[in-house]
Amino acid sequence: MSRQSASWLDGTPTSVLPLPDRGLDFGDGLFETLLLHNGNPVYLDLHMARLAQGLETLAIPDCLALAQKQVEQVCGAIEEEWRWAALRLSVIRSPGPRGYAPAPNLPPRILIHVTPLDRDCAKMSSAATLNLANIRLSTQPALARIKHMNRLEQVVAATQAQAENVDESFLLDQVGNLVSVTAGNVFLLYQGELLTPVLDNCGVAGTRRRMIIEKWAPSMGLEVREARLTLEHIANAEEVFYSNSLHTVRPVSGFGAKCWSSHGVCEALFEKFREALR
Amino acid sequence: MSRQSASWLDGTPTSVLPLPDRGLDFGDGLFETLLLHNGNPVYLDLHMARLAQGLETLAIPDCLALAQKQVEQVCGAIEEEWRWAALRLSVIRSPGPRGYAPAPNLPPRILIHVTPLDRDCAKMSSAATLNLANIRLSTQPALARIKHMNRLEQVVAATQAQAENVDESFLLDQVGNLVSVTAGNVFLLYQGELLTPVLDNCGVAGTRRRMIIEKWAPSMGLEVREARLTLEHIANAEEVFYSNSLHTVRPVSGFGAKCWSSHGVCEALFEKFREALR
Repeated sequence: MSRQSASWLDGTPTSVLPLPDRGLDFGDGLFETLLLHNGNPVYLDLHMARLAQGLETLAIPDCLALAQKQVEQVCGAIEEEWRWAALRLSVIRSPGPRGYAPAPNLPPRILIHVTPLDRDCAKMSSAATLNLANIRLSTQPALARIKHMNRLEQVVAATQAQAENVDESFLLDQVGNLVSVTAGNVFLLYQGELLTPVLDNCGVAGTRRRMIIEKWAPSMGLEVREARLTLEHIANAEEVFYSNSLHTVRPVSGFGAKCWSSHGVCEALFEKFREALR
Repeated sequence: MSRQSASWLDGTPTSVLPLPDRGLDFGDGLFETLLLHNGNPVYLDLHMARLAQGLETLAIPDCLALAQKQVEQVCGAIEEEWRWAALRLSVIRSPGPRGYAPAPNLPPRILIHVTPLDRDCAKMSSAATLNLANIRLSTQPALARIKHMNRLEQVVAATQAQAENVDESFLLDQVGNLVSVTAGNVFLLYQGELLTPVLDNCGVAGTRRRMIIEKWAPSMGLEVREARLTLEHIANAEEVFYSNSLHTVRPVSGFGAKCWSSHGVCEALFEKFREALR
């Protein structure tokens, strides 16, 4: 296998998707972005747990065991090739007749796409500069927390970040509360307390967010509190970082005129990831 | 060509889509559903105008002339085959590197999918029964009015309609105002006035909605007023109907305990469509 990305549909290598497809037509599906380390998916159980939640929310027939088996087969096939890779697992509602209404109860398509990563993911990424996205995340409690395939808002924000030459963006909700960055969850050390936005109206409940809240921060003697946060909290934070599956945690160095040079909590959390990796 | 659906990608017949694709990954594209009559696209200019708005909103490179040419080529190829058909034109941002940020300024993919329709679209459809969708449309002014490919809310609503054995659903916004039906815009005759929801926070600005507002209703001596409407307005309306490209206008016969037997305005608007068709 060459150092290029590769795809598998329902367990078979492919470079194309049969048409029509409801993922393409409506974004009618879910996805997970997994970090692969020497061919091993990292925190696969947490990704499968979020996928299970999404399948239930969207009433897509259960395919968890099959999806996990196909991820493991793909990982077996690439084991010795790439030290670090990103695996996108997409679960797409099966094709049906024209229109929004789905065909009842056919097994979903399982599409896997693997891309090698050049970065050494066992080293913490350099601190990121952030802007504020002009687009605000939509209010939609019915689809909050799950990782569905309707991601235009993230595309719009990432387009702006590219134009403004920053690494990432803070995203607010419709009333001005902080939700996340474009591709990750956000954490603030604020008056000595570790805070992260509540995700009841929008945002994705990240797998590393869950690790930080449930395991890593408590093991350092820090409780994470979910709260309504604004730009004021960022401006007055002692430390800011974000989390996602490929960076684990990444410090924020600057936002507008504000700079942070202390990243002690972020570094300690990253060390927890490194310990778990060994 | 057999009586089945068929697809063209960038002008070439195909049954598959090359991977990766940003329409599939993120819903990063736009679409139009055109009615074809003896191979002629109906109100192509209005569809292209809405597509132009969407391309600008999403900063997808202009491809209007090429998209229109490809629609016309496909229509020429099927002219004598199908009396009525639905043509889906999808414009998808070109593939790029992994992640949300797009590759700059590559021409988008143009995907066309045609499905024959069994119904005689020159006859008004039978009156529809509607329910109320449990899901409410998200508040997102930045993406309102355009026809983008993030349509999970419509899928969720259509799934419920299927389970409740109704033809269509009314959809409210997050604060309880009426927006539309799942696949169309809604109009009420209320105290003698023709009303339709404002679409500033969500909803799609339909091509037939535009025809009704700008041409058909005025030619009957009716001005359409865009207003904030609620379920109370529906309950007290003299007549209710919805519009989309495949039905033009379709009367609503029932919603909960409420029934409407008078469809005079809807019938008169449909007659305007029939006149334009000749």
